[in-house]
Amino acid sequence: MAPQRPVDPFTERTPRVVAAIKLHRGTARRNASRFLAEGGQAVSEALSAGVVRELFCTADAVARNTDLVATADHRGVPVSLVTERAAAALSETVTPQGLVAVCDLVDVSLEQALHGAPQLVAVLVDAGDPGNAGTVIRVADAAGADAVVFAGDSVDVHNGKCVRASTGSVFHLPVARSHHVLGVMDQARAAGLQVLATAADGELDLYDTDELLTTPTAWLFGNEAHGLPSELAAMADHRVRIPIHGRAESLNLATAAALCLYASARAQRAP
Amino acid sequence: MAPQRPVDPFTERTPRVVAAIKLHRGTARRNASRFLAEGGQAVSEALSAGVVRELFCTADAVARNTDLVATADHRGVPVSLVTERAAAALSETVTPQGLVAVCDLVDVSLEQALHGAPQLVAVLVDAGDPGNAGTVIRVADAAGADAVVFAGDSVDVHNGKCVRASTGSVFHLPVARSHHVLGVMDQARAAGLQVLATAADGELDLYDTDELLTTPTAWLFGNEAHGLPSELAAMADHRVRIPIHGRAESLNLATAAALCLYASARAQRAP
Repeated sequence: MAPQRPVDPFTERTPRVVAAIKLHRGTARRNASRFLAEGGQAVSEALSAGVVRELFCTADAVARNTDLVATADHRGVPVSLVTERAAAALSETVTPQGLVAVCDLVDVSLEQALHGAPQLVAVLVDAGDPGNAGTVIRVADAAGADAVVFAGDSVDVHNGKCVRASTGSVFHLPVARSHHVLGVMDQARAAGLQVLATAADGELDLYDTDELLTTPTAWLFGNEAHGLPSELAAMADHRVRIPIHGRAESLNLATAAALCLYASARAQRAP
Repeated sequence: MAPQRPVDPFTERTPRVVAAIKLHRGTARRNASRFLAEGGQAVSEALSAGVVRELFCTADAVARNTDLVATADHRGVPVSLVTERAAAALSETVTPQGLVAVCDLVDVSLEQALHGAPQLVAVLVDAGDPGNAGTVIRVADAAGADAVVFAGDSVDVHNGKCVRASTGSVFHLPVARSHHVLGVMDQARAAGLQVLATAADGELDLYDTDELLTTPTAWLFGNEAHGLPSELAAMADHRVRIPIHGRAESLNLATAAALCLYASARAQRAP
């Protein structure tokens, strides 16, 4: 058999594909005000949210997602057919699904996120792992939270790992970004929320907060490795610890958020 | 400036380093009955558990972990100094800590895992993501579970991602492995545990199970993408759904496990 002739990957990259690939980088996302959502579920949610500007798909992906591609076309979204190789370059995953949407950024202002009378808000402070942060958006969505705030030096909500870990939830509830954690605490209180900090040495046990959690609440969750800065935790209304019954030192960010947000959801919905 | 002379990475790899690097692969781990634990915390837990057979560290890591290296030496564990480059090859992380231990496998038989009168056991069925699986071990440890079972076609508990995500908890509680999920259910019942399956369409709401959860329980958690096979869920004593209040389709494996295991821990410890 004759050896395969090497293919120049760039011959398959149109200028629009090249521009889209750049959106893997945070600076390019900010400059273009666009980000990428990949895979059938995320693209479908992005279409429902009305934020898709352009859709790239392989022939195989079109065959597997006829309804979705028809919806995009019906809404006037430009659909470009790309090669498997171009789709792989557009994707950040090991097994690309051949379907990538260029979307408007989804983050909103803090005012918009806290608008109305929010009952439950998750605030990530200095979240460093995009997968963890995306999983928190997913669990906040599941717990019926009104908004998520990426505060302090947290990762970009439009990071590909964060978007994928959220499994579509970035398109379901408002996500705001603010560098000023104290400002977030002030505005949360102004919106009628008590501010609870998660802390390993908190004075309240999560099991003893059922009464407290009937009140509208903003939960502060700290960085995966360092937790919340103690001076910030001290400024919350209460510090809550999740009991550790075994020998684990701590819980990971997303599991801690799940326990706190669901404790609030349950208390707020108790008959 | 003269260009740097390229370094052959293999000149820094002694036969023992090369043998250890092979343990990144599951087949090599099974053949050698050894696996790798990296980083200060994991190595420290492995030393406490008495399973370390050999320790590799860089000069920098020795300086940062004098007590730990002294403990290893005191216990007769061979300690080898390696270059940063060899440490990087031994590590699976982007920022290696320069400290890698070769350990005895930690998994035990199902009989050992269910020995005594277990109160709370987590059973992963066909868990495909080692990071998720390791996070479940961590949260099971935190919730005070007696054991974790990797059932069906689940990942290897000794996979590097699983070990790292467990943040030392693989050394804290017994982890068993069994391909036969029905056998696990039978043995769990024989050990006095009721078997509860997590299922999106379960007939019981997790919020309504406080009474039920005072009983010793084995929780079955399904695959990240497909959940539990319905025929398995049907054979559990009850099927429990976690309420979804927002628009998320489901929860991720580790957050679902956190909610179920902590609901059990709380009910079993209620005054």
